[in-house]
Amino acid sequence: MESSSSSLLLHHSCFNPKFGKRPLLAYPLMRNPRNRKPTRICSNKMYVPGFGEASPEAKAAKHLHDFFTYVAVRIVSAQLESYNHEAYLELREFLDTNSVSDGDKFCAALMRRSSRHMKIALRILEVRSAYCKNDFEWDNLKRLSFKNVDGFNTKLMREYVLETSHVEKPDSDT
Amino acid sequence: MESSSSSLLLHHSCFNPKFGKRPLLAYPLMRNPRNRKPTRICSNKMYVPGFGEASPEAKAAKHLHDFFTYVAVRIVSAQLESYNHEAYLELREFLDTNSVSDGDKFCAALMRRSSRHMKIALRILEVRSAYCKNDFEWDNLKRLSFKNVDGFNTKLMREYVLETSHVEKPDSDT
Repeated sequence: MESSSSSLLLHHSCFNPKFGKRPLLAYPLMRNPRNRKPTRICSNKMYVPGFGEASPEAKAAKHLHDFFTYVAVRIVSAQLESYNHEAYLELREFLDTNSVSDGDKFCAALMRRSSRHMKIALRILEVRSAYCKNDFEWDNLKRLSFKNVDGFNTKLMREYVLETSHVEKPDSDT
Repeated sequence: MESSSSSLLLHHSCFNPKFGKRPLLAYPLMRNPRNRKPTRICSNKMYVPGFGEASPEAKAAKHLHDFFTYVAVRIVSAQLESYNHEAYLELREFLDTNSVSDGDKFCAALMRRSSRHMKIALRILEVRSAYCKNDFEWDNLKRLSFKNVDGFNTKLMREYVLETSHVEKPDSDT
């Protein structure tokens, strides 16, 4: 049985064009578990401490999530201002007493104020999803971040050098 | 002169394989300015008010810039702890009295404390650039943001429905 399956595999490896001129192997499609190396997670990345089980990317995504809610509130507010002034005033009034810095807390509170507020909240949820997935320019974010880090590093060093390399002119009076 | 250049262009359009079977045009490579429509910026994106001249992407990039400085401070702090305990203590002491929330302000102050602090500051600038450009997983940030917006929208709505659709059991005693 074993030799039969072996010859079948050999046959397969010889005539299948996928395997071309590879050397003939007894078990070309089987992995030998004895030769398998244990899985190791190797990374050349710098160790970032202090994020617990979450990653820096997860932390940044949470910040962006609140930012998208803030953007969605601004979009919906501008839309309501133009076609539903009553709802616009209700949202403005709610914003006066509720901070939008924690986006989900803000939306949860808005949903529970009244059925009219609930409709505005649902619109905000819808808009933040559409904004995040369709409108927000992710490539532009990356490009601007690269530009920022180069620009501000140069600015900081230039300002430091200008401040500290100030050579006092020799006093000609003395 | 005009007819000569015209026939040249015709010749070019007939025999250049790039132009294949396109109809022969008198000025195939020239645009008629009279027929040119004025440039219009068309966008299907939602209008986001309140960012002045900056874009939401620029605002988000500024937030991320401060976040990268925060991450770089943590990385450098952990590195110093393992191989330069004196510098580590100096950085820790500086962190006790200076907030890292405005990354560039923090770095500018660190640079001016002493020449030893200056070296740490330069290391932080170097690390935040390397982290932003090489280590930070931009695709993962996008993936997690999409996941967050779907997950939290569903969570908010589920919690609201569970709270409001609570049907009281008929009291069997009355």
